[in-house]
Amino acid sequence: MTRTVISSPTREVVIGFDEPFVIIGERINPTGRKLLAEEMKNGDFSRVERDALAQVEAGAQMLDINAGGISRADEPAILAEAVRLVQSLVEVPLSIDSSVVEALAAGLEVYEGKALVNSVTGEVEVMERVLPLVAKHGAAVVAVSNDETGISEDPDVRFEVAKRIVMTAADYGIPKEDVVVDPLVMPIGAMGTAGRQVFHLVRRLREELGVNTTCGASNISFGLPNREGINGAFLTMAMMAGLTSAIANPLHKDAKAAIMAGDLLLGHDKDATRWIAASRMTDQGRRRRSSRREGRGGDAGST
Amino acid sequence: MTRTVISSPTREVVIGFDEPFVIIGERINPTGRKLLAEEMKNGDFSRVERDALAQVEAGAQMLDINAGGISRADEPAILAEAVRLVQSLVEVPLSIDSSVVEALAAGLEVYEGKALVNSVTGEVEVMERVLPLVAKHGAAVVAVSNDETGISEDPDVRFEVAKRIVMTAADYGIPKEDVVVDPLVMPIGAMGTAGRQVFHLVRRLREELGVNTTCGASNISFGLPNREGINGAFLTMAMMAGLTSAIANPLHKDAKAAIMAGDLLLGHDKDATRWIAASRMTDQGRRRRSSRREGRGGDAGST
Repeated sequence: MTRTVISSPTREVVIGFDEPFVIIGERINPTGRKLLAEEMKNGDFSRVERDALAQVEAGAQMLDINAGGISRADEPAILAEAVRLVQSLVEVPLSIDSSVVEALAAGLEVYEGKALVNSVTGEVEVMERVLPLVAKHGAAVVAVSNDETGISEDPDVRFEVAKRIVMTAADYGIPKEDVVVDPLVMPIGAMGTAGRQVFHLVRRLREELGVNTTCGASNISFGLPNREGINGAFLTMAMMAGLTSAIANPLHKDAKAAIMAGDLLLGHDKDATRWIAASRMTDQGRRRRSSRREGRGGDAGST
Repeated sequence: MTRTVISSPTREVVIGFDEPFVIIGERINPTGRKLLAEEMKNGDFSRVERDALAQVEAGAQMLDINAGGISRADEPAILAEAVRLVQSLVEVPLSIDSSVVEALAAGLEVYEGKALVNSVTGEVEVMERVLPLVAKHGAAVVAVSNDETGISEDPDVRFEVAKRIVMTAADYGIPKEDVVVDPLVMPIGAMGTAGRQVFHLVRRLREELGVNTTCGASNISFGLPNREGINGAFLTMAMMAGLTSAIANPLHKDAKAAIMAGDLLLGHDKDATRWIAASRMTDQGRRRRSSRREGRGGDAGST
């Protein structure tokens, strides 16, 4: 039973085959969020704070911290500052996310606990720079299954890339429990086999390589309507195949509910305790919103 | 590739491993619907008509027709009447549902096409009475995996019961393609292993016995809050395990959307054609409802 332990000074999160699914909150990422990028660049981290608190409140067991897309030169300092700030606000462990090795190093330098480094690829040069850093800090790492040749459309080639990263990590003293593989999710609208590919690959990664897995789940629905409906179904089906964590938005209620139902159905929510508690909270929220509406005299009650 | 073909005079539905998931509409069933029972007893089938049309409109590819719980003596005539009426209204093939063999016989007598008989169990006496009827009419049959000893809590015992029914059916000349096995779904709130049991059993039924499967999906969430959320996740996960049809309520939007997303992700909705069409219809419905609300002057738009 492979268990990947990530920690903060006060909390431990276990990603594992027999553990509840781990949601790594994806919101703190200025890529594609112009306002957030502008603010972070100017040293205004108020939105980062709000995003951190809101995601933990919504059930994220970990948070991903990314400071990309602002300025390559400033990224190490900004990422380190964001990591420090978020650790002062919330107890959940963090994933330190950058394609700039110096930024990963700066983030790890200030991080307290055992972080998840996001990410290393199968490119030789990237492995040679990222893996020593992961080993030095005793961290865990997300291994993305592409290499110098790009992202293969053949999931079995992606399996081989993942295997190579796991083996190389071992050479640096990083055990396979500390390598969490991202099988890479393609948009199903562009590639009809995208779902089956991921399910097949996740199952092989679990059964043959014995590693935990994570993914950016929302990519599956890119370009299609009612994305949340697809994302929720994708997550439960990927959980069936063996996916043990995802970088996702816990504020998306459908996806969050799908994951919780998945945990319940796979036997990872004993006596449905968490399901029942979450349903109660949702009911209370609904009643509060509904009584606010009535206070304003609308007839929304009939809808 | 096992294909179970069910037909009406104008339409063929294929339940199969490489086919879109088949929803068998469950609404026409007076059990637990007092008003419907009363009406059907008095020869008023207006609600049956409305339920038939609404379920087909909502996407049911087949309808289950049940006239149980009214009167054992009258059930054959009432079921036959319901079958005749529904066949005059909608084109989809039917599942004829009764625990009273005479009622199954009466329904089959008037049915036009190849029906699905719901159901036979592994009890010797039941098999001896139902299977000849199925064979005589060249119908298909739902095989429920319990026998004289009841419903085993061990899914591997339920597998053996299903296997025995398939083998006995073969003795009567019914090919295994025409036996659709119901693995029996227990409430997850009462039995924490209920989800994993069904997934395990459905996979064995598909891989070892090579049969199609169906189930009453909503039983999984019995007694728990937010049942639709559990049902939707259960259906997609069961589809991953190999489930090919379900007796369900197509008017439940979450479960319907989950099934459609499941089809999309398993590659049974080429170019996402059906997903996109369904999303358009939902959007139109939402706009219509929203403009009706505005016409009444409520402030529901702000919710």
